[in-house]
Amino acid sequence: MTQEVSKLVIVTERLLLKEITKIIESAGATGYTVVAAGGKGSRNVRSSGQPAVMDSFTNIKIEVLVADRAVALGISDEIAGRFFDNYSGITYVSEAEVLHAHTL
Amino acid sequence: MTQEVSKLVIVTERLLLKEITKIIESAGATGYTVVAAGGKGSRNVRSSGQPAVMDSFTNIKIEVLVADRAVALGISDEIAGRFFDNYSGITYVSEAEVLHAHTL
Amino acid sequence: MTQEVSKLVIVTERLLLKEITKIIESAGATGYTVVAAGGKGSRNVRSSGQPAVMDSFTNIKIEVLVADRAVALGISDEIAGRFFDNYSGITYVSEAEVLHAHTL
Repeated sequence: MTQEVSKLVIVTERLLLKEITKIIESAGATGYTVVAAGGKGSRNVRSSGQPAVMDSFTNIKIEVLVADRAVALGISDEIAGRFFDNYSGITYVSEAEVLHAHTL
Repeated sequence: MTQEVSKLVIVTERLLLKEITKIIESAGATGYTVVAAGGKGSRNVRSSGQPAVMDSFTNIKIEVLVADRAVALGISDEIAGRFFDNYSGITYVSEAEVLHAHTL
Repeated sequence: MTQEVSKLVIVTERLLLKEITKIIESAGATGYTVVAAGGKGSRNVRSSGQPAVMDSFTNIKIEVLVADRAVALGISDEIAGRFFDNYSGITYVSEAEVLHAHTL
């Protein structure tokens, strides 16, 4: 009854949220989770040299679970191709197993 | 010295937090982490068609590390059985390895 | 083109953020992500018996991706050795695969 899935994680700048969720939905993913994030390896840390954490979460971390790994790779390719020349970001994938899911 | 664990993740509606943490503690899990989350695949995105992210994090993402995978499955079963008929939510599990842990 | 990495996760008290990010950077890790967190298994839950969640996120969850697992273990050792006698915290590691990364 459980389902092996690929968990795609995208950490990037907050202003890209709407565009990225469009890409995710266009790829057929049925859901995603978004969390506010700070950190280094992102534009917002550069000016002060300190992470813009706790004070302003200017990044987002988006998680997408997809049954087909190729879909995760496709979403990542499109996001990186469209945005990562001009915006900071990282995408990575790991394996997970969905136990229960229900969307109203 | 490290310990293989199952990491159970529950993403669901915020108002269920107290009930869910009771279930987790009753199952004998010694700790969990909670993060505010938004996203799609949740009730709050339905009305506007846009994710209720950054403006209002009406979901929570709870992570529980347990040594025994069966405990993770049991927690998931109870949460899904009690709440997922009436609330949106997803539970998934992945593998991790605890390096150090200390609770005061 | 993808790269296998170890994802080190550190969940601990917020006030340690600056010290921990120094340790991460000294170890040569090029980036990390920080999220505000609450939960149990942390000092802030003890007084009331309720998790200090949603009201005050007094914990942080830090994620670091490193190509060399030994670097993850070294960061974890140093954090635990310096802080976990006096502060609550947990460190764990899992495997992931970086698809795309770009830092401006």
